[in-house]
Amino acid sequence: MTPATVLLGRCRELVRPALVDAVGRLHPWTGEMAAYALGWADTAGTPDTGGSEGKGVRQALAVLGAEAVGADGADAVPGAVAVELVHTFSLLHDDIMDADALRRQRPAVWKAYGTGPAVLAGDALLAQAVATLAEAPGPHTAAAVRHLSHTLNTLVSGQAEDLRFEERPWSGPGAVEPEQYRSMADHKTGALLGCALALGAILGGAPDRTVSRLERAGRHLGLAFQAVDDILGIWGDPRVTGKPVHADLRQGKKTYPVLVALADGGKAAHELAMLFATAERIDGETAAHVAALVEEAGGRTETREEARRHVDAAHRALREASLAHGAAQELDVLFTHLLDRTW
Amino acid sequence: MTPATVLLGRCRELVRPALVDAVGRLHPWTGEMAAYALGWADTAGTPDTGGSEGKGVRQALAVLGAEAVGADGADAVPGAVAVELVHTFSLLHDDIMDADALRRQRPAVWKAYGTGPAVLAGDALLAQAVATLAEAPGPHTAAAVRHLSHTLNTLVSGQAEDLRFEERPWSGPGAVEPEQYRSMADHKTGALLGCALALGAILGGAPDRTVSRLERAGRHLGLAFQAVDDILGIWGDPRVTGKPVHADLRQGKKTYPVLVALADGGKAAHELAMLFATAERIDGETAAHVAALVEEAGGRTETREEARRHVDAAHRALREASLAHGAAQELDVLFTHLLDRTW
Repeated sequence: MTPATVLLGRCRELVRPALVDAVGRLHPWTGEMAAYALGWADTAGTPDTGGSEGKGVRQALAVLGAEAVGADGADAVPGAVAVELVHTFSLLHDDIMDADALRRQRPAVWKAYGTGPAVLAGDALLAQAVATLAEAPGPHTAAAVRHLSHTLNTLVSGQAEDLRFEERPWSGPGAVEPEQYRSMADHKTGALLGCALALGAILGGAPDRTVSRLERAGRHLGLAFQAVDDILGIWGDPRVTGKPVHADLRQGKKTYPVLVALADGGKAAHELAMLFATAERIDGETAAHVAALVEEAGGRTETREEARRHVDAAHRALREASLAHGAAQELDVLFTHLLDRTW
Repeated sequence: MTPATVLLGRCRELVRPALVDAVGRLHPWTGEMAAYALGWADTAGTPDTGGSEGKGVRQALAVLGAEAVGADGADAVPGAVAVELVHTFSLLHDDIMDADALRRQRPAVWKAYGTGPAVLAGDALLAQAVATLAEAPGPHTAAAVRHLSHTLNTLVSGQAEDLRFEERPWSGPGAVEPEQYRSMADHKTGALLGCALALGAILGGAPDRTVSRLERAGRHLGLAFQAVDDILGIWGDPRVTGKPVHADLRQGKKTYPVLVALADGGKAAHELAMLFATAERIDGETAAHVAALVEEAGGRTETREEARRHVDAAHRALREASLAHGAAQELDVLFTHLLDRTW
């Protein structure tokens, strides 16, 4: 086990009883769907040992956020539960909206249980996330709930931006600009990672300035994470990612590498724009050709740079926050682990 | 205009600017869907003057809840906004789950904008409801958010119970008992009406005992309201309800009048059970026959009694709460108005 795996395991152990309790307080039916979505059980309710559970990054960030400000990791548990539930809610509803049939190599909840029930399960997770945090003891609950609710608005906005990208042209007037993609990723991915760290810090009693810096670190982590994800979505090894080769291209996703390639203005960018304007489907050899053009137009290199910029900014924000030494080191370990995914 | 209409109008005027502001802070696309769902605009964004807007009962209850405990109605505005947004969220998502294509004689949001966007719009409304309340000024915000989040859990549970009723037999082992229906209605309808009054009282600084009594009044009001709704769903005049005659029977809804009729044990109940077990569809003459059998087995009378019991209990809870005289009278007016719907 790597240090990061040990770390994620420790945080998961700490948070697990409260997370199990929160799911256990749902209506049995929505609880069953929630357990499935969390990778704890299959559709028959049998414990799932197939490794369908998420890494638990968000709960770990919440715990480390509290420890980093000198508090006990246990203080962050209601925040950790809230961000894990919100994350599960957003995957569940996003899969409906994006018509994604698979999630972690299993049928998505809407495929396994139907769209209506999946909408309900997401609602139940979101409601329970807010309730768990709102009922947390201690003097910092109100500030934590305020932060979470602000993040929820941001998260939903990010998903709205992402869905609207689908309607827009690949190039020319109205095309999605790389900066608009960055803003979407910040809202859709960065905000919740930032919130996880911030909730830990808030519940740990940190001053506003420290909370802001940790939040900023989390948001940059999210942007770096998304950039890596976009690279893997095109050039990732299917044996590692569990997705088909060129998956994002086949799905017609307007991701950062493609957008910066299209915005490059050179010969490859022009060919790429022409191809998107004329090709009926991007698959097989066309996908391989598109991937090569994106790379030629600098899309891969620039996305890697983008990731590095945000990793650096994340580490800088951590250093500026003057954190407890051990926890700061663990955050560094976790950040590095998250971004070192075979790219 | 009746006194109740004047009252609802006064509360709507008071809450409107904050509600418009809350919707205006959403992503423009979800904001457009929210405005449509609230009956403010058509799908082209043109202001809707066709009377598609709801009565605004929940916002009025929040305002009157504050006034009833001697506070300024304005103190309740963040709570009023929250309950209206939660109500709109729940209609929007419930219509998806129930595959209801019409809402207030217009296409439901999922019909007008698609299922995915409707899921998103509901999420946006829910998130904004929590955020609006969490950001309210004053010393009672944390208690109000706690109450709202508890209610959200209850509301989602109620919808889960309701959806599960569909899978169960009309009679025999596993049939829905009238008491289970009452519990579902309390969760799905009563909880939010109770929450509206409670939030007004909490934000108005009332002691816990008063909050509980007002909440109880609202929950009984909800149960009475649901009973009246169930009567109208079978015997309502289509020109008044805007729904086809015997609408609930045609849709196969397991409502209170039918469940108590089936539980009656007499001859009509047996014929009814047989009919549900064998009829492929309930429509036309079959629906009229079912309605007659439900009435013969006491379903209509007993549901009317049920409504009266809850109206009485609601008024009793109001009296026990020792409220400001004027506001208590207005609550009486509103309660009576809501239950006096041509039955």
